[in-house]
Amino acid sequence: MKNYLFNLGKKAKISARNNIGTKKKNKVLNDYVNLILKNQSKIISENQKDIKKARANKLKENFVKRLVLDKEKIFQIISSIKKIISLKDPVNQTLKKWKRPNGLRIEKKTIPLGVIAIIYESRPNVTSDVASLCFKSGNPVILKGGSEAYFSNKILSELFKKALKKNKVNSNFVQLINYKNRKIVDFLLSQMNNYIDVVIPRGGKNLVKKVQDLSKIPVIGHLEGICHTYIDKNADLLMSKKITLNAKLRNTAICGSTETILIHKKILKKFCNPILSNLEENGCLIKGDRHIYKIYNGKVNIARESDWYKEYLDSIVSVKSVKNIDEAINHINKYGTMHTDAIITKNIKSAKKFLREVKSSIAMHNTSTQFADGGEFGFGGEVGISTNTIPPRGPVGLNQLVSYKYQVSSNGKIRK
Amino acid sequence: MKNYLFNLGKKAKISARNNIGTKKKNKVLNDYVNLILKNQSKIISENQKDIKKARANKLKENFVKRLVLDKEKIFQIISSIKKIISLKDPVNQTLKKWKRPNGLRIEKKTIPLGVIAIIYESRPNVTSDVASLCFKSGNPVILKGGSEAYFSNKILSELFKKALKKNKVNSNFVQLINYKNRKIVDFLLSQMNNYIDVVIPRGGKNLVKKVQDLSKIPVIGHLEGICHTYIDKNADLLMSKKITLNAKLRNTAICGSTETILIHKKILKKFCNPILSNLEENGCLIKGDRHIYKIYNGKVNIARESDWYKEYLDSIVSVKSVKNIDEAINHINKYGTMHTDAIITKNIKSAKKFLREVKSSIAMHNTSTQFADGGEFGFGGEVGISTNTIPPRGPVGLNQLVSYKYQVSSNGKIRK
Repeated sequence: MKNYLFNLGKKAKISARNNIGTKKKNKVLNDYVNLILKNQSKIISENQKDIKKARANKLKENFVKRLVLDKEKIFQIISSIKKIISLKDPVNQTLKKWKRPNGLRIEKKTIPLGVIAIIYESRPNVTSDVASLCFKSGNPVILKGGSEAYFSNKILSELFKKALKKNKVNSNFVQLINYKNRKIVDFLLSQMNNYIDVVIPRGGKNLVKKVQDLSKIPVIGHLEGICHTYIDKNADLLMSKKITLNAKLRNTAICGSTETILIHKKILKKFCNPILSNLEENGCLIKGDRHIYKIYNGKVNIARESDWYKEYLDSIVSVKSVKNIDEAINHINKYGTMHTDAIITKNIKSAKKFLREVKSSIAMHNTSTQFADGGEFGFGGEVGISTNTIPPRGPVGLNQLVSYKYQVSSNGKIRK
Repeated sequence: MKNYLFNLGKKAKISARNNIGTKKKNKVLNDYVNLILKNQSKIISENQKDIKKARANKLKENFVKRLVLDKEKIFQIISSIKKIISLKDPVNQTLKKWKRPNGLRIEKKTIPLGVIAIIYESRPNVTSDVASLCFKSGNPVILKGGSEAYFSNKILSELFKKALKKNKVNSNFVQLINYKNRKIVDFLLSQMNNYIDVVIPRGGKNLVKKVQDLSKIPVIGHLEGICHTYIDKNADLLMSKKITLNAKLRNTAICGSTETILIHKKILKKFCNPILSNLEENGCLIKGDRHIYKIYNGKVNIARESDWYKEYLDSIVSVKSVKNIDEAINHINKYGTMHTDAIITKNIKSAKKFLREVKSSIAMHNTSTQFADGGEFGFGGEVGISTNTIPPRGPVGLNQLVSYKYQVSSNGKIRK
């Protein structure tokens, strides 16, 4: 296993030379699209092997659903590759440029991040999505998909390699781990830090937690999105109703959905009933602190300390009254996960304070937390939303899969 | 030990609220300067305790030298704090700003990195330098200095805490580990990833390597600077002589000094003798490959494979002939440490190719590698030069000790 992985790592490192032009990148991706189209029936039949095995092993039906590659899923795969082709090449962009009194001209330029390992679960479309994003940003990728999607991942990565070879690009740019050993992810995370620059886990909480706990390699990814909407004493009531309803219930399953509402105590009497009944009428269960319990006329369960830590991903909301904006910020910085948190207020000074002092990757003013999404930010798709403190933070799209270098020129300057 | 460290970590996290204005930051640093001035004799007498102990333990004289705090060293400490006061606050700067068709206004703004741990050896001035840099960039700092500088580090950090308290800033912004246990650094690196966001080792190769090997927290810092100067077939001879002499010999002890010279074989006959004799006459030992050995008229040792991996930090240079620019780039990417590498050429196309394809944090054209320095870049001092692939890379000064967040505003927009 050790030799197998080290060898993979070495090959990835060697392939990582930043010398593929944008035209060639797009040509490879276009060829990949054509190869997928040409091999559609083969992809489906390989996928059927995985499905059969999953059914034989009596895996749950919604698990099997995620595994399926049919004509529609293949169409989606192709659309996302085409979208990536249409995006600007994020590499070799000038971030900054300046001259120094010592005669040096310095340019800060984007470069690929390095070798990226992706550890994911049962969705085989991750194989093509992520390989395409990493390739366009110049990053060799090592893929470790779930063993349940073995045949599907294999054919999708092989077709990518074919597209690379066809264009005389080192085919080790995309490598799939197909060595079967339960310890392989542990080994990769704890021993491969000289070969892999970044790890991105894609999947459920358990997978992400495992990766974060074991990894000696920097991890991009978030564990949970415990998002807050804070209604300030200077909030507009109608706006507060509209935003909380959308932030909580538009789609409860996404990481940017609000899990806790904080309400300034000065407006509690006026705001509590219209806002919470609006949520309750739309099927939301309310868990409130003592003040909410007293004031709200609808149904309310008493919130426990542990509820402030909950990512429900469901029609449930925790509600707390706070005595001022500082208590709101402190609550968010204590119980939140630095994902997305919003303030509703007409007071610009309070908004500025909130936007600055919450530790969130995305801080919002008079806006629904459901907008926490690379597409909505104009990033054209994302590999995830990072809640790390160090970059990249927030939605991680093509433009965030890069690092930088300094390019320095002069006319023969030496240092005194 | 565990409780002691976790408690330190918790206190640092709590202190990390991004709400200290620039004026207050500078006021704290000014008060720190005044406290150092006022307590000069006390600092010197505390330092004497460390010196006495070091002498009693028969530590080497140059080690003791680094430990000494006298009037001159204290003057230097004060100058660097004053320099930091004069630099622009790196936090809360707008990096980018855009509007979206969905009505969102998005600003990407700088924030502090988080809690920074500094692990360093015997120089007590690191305590004041680093604490000041981290404070100005809004990052709480946990300091772990060498036990030999115990009393000196203690007084310097206590005076900083005094300056914080005087200005009603949480004094846990600066914390010094003074718990004596040999395993404390190991524990910090392997168990404190929930409390510390970045680790910066400052010291010799062994310290840095240990930190990089053990840490589960992202590490900023470089192990070695194996820097190259490549003389292309289109190089100017006089410029090549001037630059190689400076790049190798100006100061052999700094990480940006050139350790290996690569020469294009087409110009070997003409360039080899003037360039290498220029170095030899100035006291440099030449280690060359077979071609150099044949052509060079002066004294030359045969270079072994292991010499390409050497950071001499001395008047010794490895010299290799390469058959083209690609071989030069491949050599640098194989044996180099992504620190600083230069090309000398009049050919703009070759320069561009080189600047793009070497993996170095700093790639240079017609410039001495000795310029690899935060001060020369205009960063106003640095905590080190990072050779990581992920940011921050290159010289890490005040402006690199930050991360970013997205601040999103709208007039009550909800997501469809």
